Amino acid sequence: MRWSQYFLPTLKEASIENDDTPSLRLILQAGMVRQLSSGIYTYLPFGLAALRNIEQVIREEMNATGAVELLMPALQPTSLWKESDRYKLLGKDIVSFMFKDRHDRELLLGPTHEEVIMEVVRREVNSYKQLPLTLYQIQTKFRDEMRPRFGLVRSREFLMKDAYSFDVDEEGLELSYQKMLAAYHRIFKRLEIKYKVTGADSGAMGGKFSEEFVAEGACPELEIGHIFKLGTPYSEKMKGLFLDKTGQQRPFVMGCYGIGVSRLVSAVIENNYDQSGIIWPISVAPFHLLILPINYDDPAVKEAADRLYAAAQEKKIPVLMDDRARQAGEKFKDADLTGIPFRITIGKNLKEGKVELKKRSEPKGELLPPDQILETLFKYLSI
Amino acid sequence: MRWSQYFLPTLKEASIENDDTPSLRLILQAGMVRQLSSGIYTYLPFGLAALRNIEQVIREEMNATGAVELLMPALQPTSLWKESDRYKLLGKDIVSFMFKDRHDRELLLGPTHEEVIMEVVRREVNSYKQLPLTLYQIQTKFRDEMRPRFGLVRSREFLMKDAYSFDVDEEGLELSYQKMLAAYHRIFKRLEIKYKVTGADSGAMGGKFSEEFVAEGACPELEIGHIFKLGTPYSEKMKGLFLDKTGQQRPFVMGCYGIGVSRLVSAVIENNYDQSGIIWPISVAPFHLLILPINYDDPAVKEAADRLYAAAQEKKIPVLMDDRARQAGEKFKDADLTGIPFRITIGKNLKEGKVELKKRSEPKGELLPPDQILETLFKYLSI
Repeated sequence: MRWSQYFLPTLKEASIENDDTPSLRLILQAGMVRQLSSGIYTYLPFGLAALRNIEQVIREEMNATGAVELLMPALQPTSLWKESDRYKLLGKDIVSFMFKDRHDRELLLGPTHEEVIMEVVRREVNSYKQLPLTLYQIQTKFRDEMRPRFGLVRSREFLMKDAYSFDVDEEGLELSYQKMLAAYHRIFKRLEIKYKVTGADSGAMGGKFSEEFVAEGACPELEIGHIFKLGTPYSEKMKGLFLDKTGQQRPFVMGCYGIGVSRLVSAVIENNYDQSGIIWPISVAPFHLLILPINYDDPAVKEAADRLYAAAQEKKIPVLMDDRARQAGEKFKDADLTGIPFRITIGKNLKEGKVELKKRSEPKGELLPPDQILETLFKYLSI
Repeated sequence: MRWSQYFLPTLKEASIENDDTPSLRLILQAGMVRQLSSGIYTYLPFGLAALRNIEQVIREEMNATGAVELLMPALQPTSLWKESDRYKLLGKDIVSFMFKDRHDRELLLGPTHEEVIMEVVRREVNSYKQLPLTLYQIQTKFRDEMRPRFGLVRSREFLMKDAYSFDVDEEGLELSYQKMLAAYHRIFKRLEIKYKVTGADSGAMGGKFSEEFVAEGACPELEIGHIFKLGTPYSEKMKGLFLDKTGQQRPFVMGCYGIGVSRLVSAVIENNYDQSGIIWPISVAPFHLLILPINYDDPAVKEAADRLYAAAQEKKIPVLMDDRARQAGEKFKDADLTGIPFRITIGKNLKEGKVELKKRSEPKGELLPPDQILETLFKYLSI
């Protein structure tokens, strides 16, 4: 991607509230998101790319556990919440948007999907032979927060991964739960987030046991994951039943497992930045390589930059080239701010046949001939 | 993927309304979607896979035009619609869900995003140097339809691709529009949909010129795409202004370009089915290959099936193996219904060292030794 044809508007300053977090300032300055209204954000292309990379890590680890992806709707009839007996929590413990459609039927925008997944599964699964089953989605959720804050952390519209396991008994649930727990450890490790796991209050979700994943960082909130052994309350109330080996009807034993995907964008940054900007881990980086020609108008610089750009694309390296007609100082500032892991600078050393390769995470780069620089980069990227 | 570990519940029959379309019946029977409420659907894994493949075709063709992807929120403050003077159309020509948040501020669930994209662009773009610019998203839209029908075609929650172009003048708009028009032709061709393009009423979108893409098929509705030359009305009303080469302030000249992504699932099927079920084009097929061992309990059959399954996975062919303990007749019925383009059947011919390779689109298959069958398949798939 050429910066001149991209839409990556960086900001010298970003105004945030006093109690807001460093990651929100960086997310705004690095042209990742813009606020539309309180707690409602547009992901600009650079932010969307980071979000999609996080999604992909989660998807790969979910699939590796044998969980299967589906997609439930945001709109839910509140009648289902009457069945589960959670209707009374709406607007209080569960701060959802509720309204009536043109036929005067009450709908809500799903803040969570236990009721919907139960409706799907109870219609299709009626035998122990179809179990265990874990389904998940990566989907937009809504909450009518009293006070949205911390940018993507406590917002009114956000992306979540929610998974639901269905087992024949408690031992089955324990296995499904442990698989998810292990997957969560792998996910947060790949995203280079420091975190701890603590026993937690199951709150409005119900059930008997839950654990919470809390990220390190300045944000007092950043719960990034929460996993629950729900047991049978939803199945009993909503008649989620199957026939066991002996032909007896029994309720599904259920677990649920959430990850705040949008929140992870903040958490990754809180764990990976310095005074000058973001330092993306490769797993999340919107681009792996930034090519920075200091003066793209200079024919020799342009030729070298274009050749390296084409070679990186050839090797399928996600590459951004800063071909903008800007001052060198501004380009270097934006390079540090946007935090792309590797940078190739093409400047005055080109006359001596050298260009610079620099890691964002290290203070100094190395000078190399253009012909060797990509090989060195491929080694770093294990390509 | 092994069918026994997947979630693909097929149905012998599906009840649909009299005036509904063949594609809706097939979508339900082939375990692709389930209705949660009127006009509100869950995508089961098989349907989601088709949807994602359609998304990917659209994304590739959008990116090839130089358009850049972002993601806008579903929640929109109605104040923006007062600026554009479309507030008065809400609930009438534009059937949206509107409600108030806990602070009594009015929100709507976006049925379209001209106002939001204008709010994003007017804050970031102020010079002709930043133009032309085309931004797009693939995002969930909402409409409070009077009478939802035809399954995914006229639903209340659906996926759309909406793109917005910003140019300095009418000639620029013409270029951007023609690029999109060409991309639309490529998209529908790749999806193997027959369609026609007609001049259309611009309706609530405004502007002076639009063209509509209408798919062939039984559905009286299936408009699958609509592209508009909007001109300057939104820019003038919402103060979307930039400085031209001479330093004069001028309004962006705008175009907008929609594709009904969920609708395309129906349109692809309407254009690709027979009496027994779906016949997926490769570009959309949730899996390219179905391996069908007639009796997976037979050790020789199991060994051959497992070996072919592993070999297909090795070659990154999206493969489903029907390892269910079902009658052969039921498996063949489901194979035709779900419409995976290639099928390898492992049955009684295995004793003579032969398995069958069959295209879903052709009545007869060919018998080949297991060692040669994948090579033949790779040729068909151009791998």
